[in-house]
Amino acid sequence: MSENKTQAFDIKKAAESKIANVDFENLAFGNIFTDHMLYCDYKDGEWGTPVICPYAPIEMDPSSRVFHYGQAIFEGMKAYKDEQDDIWLFRPDENFIRFNKSATRLAMPEVPEEVFMEGLKQLINIDKEWVRKGKGNSLYLRPFMIATGHGVIAAPSAQYRFMIILSPAKSYYTGEVKVLIAEHFSRAANGGIGAAKAAGNYSAQFYPTRLANQQGYQQVIWTDDATHTKLEEAGTMNVFFRINDTLYTAPTSERILDGVTRKSIIDLAKREGINVEVRSVLVDELLAAAKDGSLKEMFGAGTAAVVNPIVGFSYQDTYYELPKQDKPLSLEIKDKLTNIQYKLAEDTFGWTVKI
Amino acid sequence: MSENKTQAFDIKKAAESKIANVDFENLAFGNIFTDHMLYCDYKDGEWGTPVICPYAPIEMDPSSRVFHYGQAIFEGMKAYKDEQDDIWLFRPDENFIRFNKSATRLAMPEVPEEVFMEGLKQLINIDKEWVRKGKGNSLYLRPFMIATGHGVIAAPSAQYRFMIILSPAKSYYTGEVKVLIAEHFSRAANGGIGAAKAAGNYSAQFYPTRLANQQGYQQVIWTDDATHTKLEEAGTMNVFFRINDTLYTAPTSERILDGVTRKSIIDLAKREGINVEVRSVLVDELLAAAKDGSLKEMFGAGTAAVVNPIVGFSYQDTYYELPKQDKPLSLEIKDKLTNIQYKLAEDTFGWTVKI
Repeated sequence: MSENKTQAFDIKKAAESKIANVDFENLAFGNIFTDHMLYCDYKDGEWGTPVICPYAPIEMDPSSRVFHYGQAIFEGMKAYKDEQDDIWLFRPDENFIRFNKSATRLAMPEVPEEVFMEGLKQLINIDKEWVRKGKGNSLYLRPFMIATGHGVIAAPSAQYRFMIILSPAKSYYTGEVKVLIAEHFSRAANGGIGAAKAAGNYSAQFYPTRLANQQGYQQVIWTDDATHTKLEEAGTMNVFFRINDTLYTAPTSERILDGVTRKSIIDLAKREGINVEVRSVLVDELLAAAKDGSLKEMFGAGTAAVVNPIVGFSYQDTYYELPKQDKPLSLEIKDKLTNIQYKLAEDTFGWTVKI
Repeated sequence: MSENKTQAFDIKKAAESKIANVDFENLAFGNIFTDHMLYCDYKDGEWGTPVICPYAPIEMDPSSRVFHYGQAIFEGMKAYKDEQDDIWLFRPDENFIRFNKSATRLAMPEVPEEVFMEGLKQLINIDKEWVRKGKGNSLYLRPFMIATGHGVIAAPSAQYRFMIILSPAKSYYTGEVKVLIAEHFSRAANGGIGAAKAAGNYSAQFYPTRLANQQGYQQVIWTDDATHTKLEEAGTMNVFFRINDTLYTAPTSERILDGVTRKSIIDLAKREGINVEVRSVLVDELLAAAKDGSLKEMFGAGTAAVVNPIVGFSYQDTYYELPKQDKPLSLEIKDKLTNIQYKLAEDTFGWTVKI
């Protein structure tokens, strides 16, 4: 962190920390926030001074565009503390680039790199006690931007607020995940905003996911909306299939998020000599592979869970249980990836960035 | 309005009105709000007491779900004052029903009829000076609901706020509207949320619309996302085509909003003996009709503008100008519909509801 940039930030520290009240052994995901937050307002065509201040509610006009027209984007990232108390980010440049791609797709202004990256670093430094050592512990970072301009005309806002909030996290275990393959509902349109981390994409998934939950499935595997024949994402994660010893995942597209964990797994698997094919997997292929026993594993990939193994899937009212693996590839990949993130293994890719 | 229900509302009146500062002759759409607003909070599985209070900013936690996952829906309605100073709503039951359909699709709780309808009536009554007489004047009503629960886990919120805000409006004239037929971008997926008045649907349209604006087109005519061959909506409105003396509009679907103005126009046109066909119009049909001269008119239909005539369209870099009509059907329909809304013509349909 370059010290000479510090003066560009307006920093107001909290009088006291809430950290003593936090039970770090029993953290629900994304529920507790650190002592400080960052915000930076955009108006008259430019970004103002970033402010770091005590975490607190913000005032919003009831006509703010975000409430009516959904201009809202975010990123999900993590900070990790190594055994030497150094704090590391994982490929933050990827999140920064994607954030501004999302901004463009939602007709929002791009956030300057200085505000996003330096903002993250300064904020994390101030709340560094909240990053706990030990594999599985992390600080979840949530940069986001909302349209704050007033008025209920359906047009892009002229004012925005960029914010960063931080939430301490434990490793994310969701239990045995059974998934339902979508036959009717969809998360994204061709020519739509499925590739953006836009708030609206998530709310669209809640109702179909709730229906799946009621049938005993934790997540939905989304298929293409036109034909429902191509397997695209798992809940809010990218999805991988292991058929025999090859890993398959769909190519990114306007319907599929360009996940940082997804692309890291592809690179890591290739380095390990695993055959990876980036192409659409068809529902019919999956059914055939499940029936002939060549389907070995399925897993979701994303920042929160890193890798989320799937134990079985349902399609057209038939449930297909995946075979138990002695040494699942999914967990081997997760272990190798998290070892890089926690600085327990050499980072030959140059993915980790010290704060 | 039944008086005995009044006590269920908590009413705090503004100390003084802002109305003297408002130039009712020069109103930009959706920019100025009346003295009061309504809110009603949902938590622990039930709705609390609706509150009517002075219009003011609200406090939101930065982790509120609406900012991150886009659970936000709304309705657009209008109140009209007749020559006897009575105030009328237009088919408010349709908006109420659609609001709760949107809520279900976004995994949000339904709002009770008492809160929505009685809330509208009480709020409008308190701010009735803001409804101006005279055709073209109206009070735009914006009921909406946002997810207020805290926490950045991608799941439906457990807390919500329903609100109503009111904005005085003049008749909405957008100038000569030229439209661009979408060849790449889309507003909705099959199995998605296009039929809901969900905030996320609108932000998805802003960027493609901005690109169209830069080419000199005010709006985009959305086509189906899978093939881009079917004409579906015009900007944020439903769209009608007059070919010879028949009016065509697409059937409602998961991709197309069930517009109140749309369905009113269909009924009104039928009563007037106009042939109406509710079916998808193909881009190829439109091009053929434009070329052979049988395409007479195109117009958008929605609450804000009622009817928005289109003067021409562009497709694959060719611009097609529509013929000027001596007596456009679009304006005849607009006139008949607004006469019903302003109580200047008999409401044979029973669409108008007195407050």
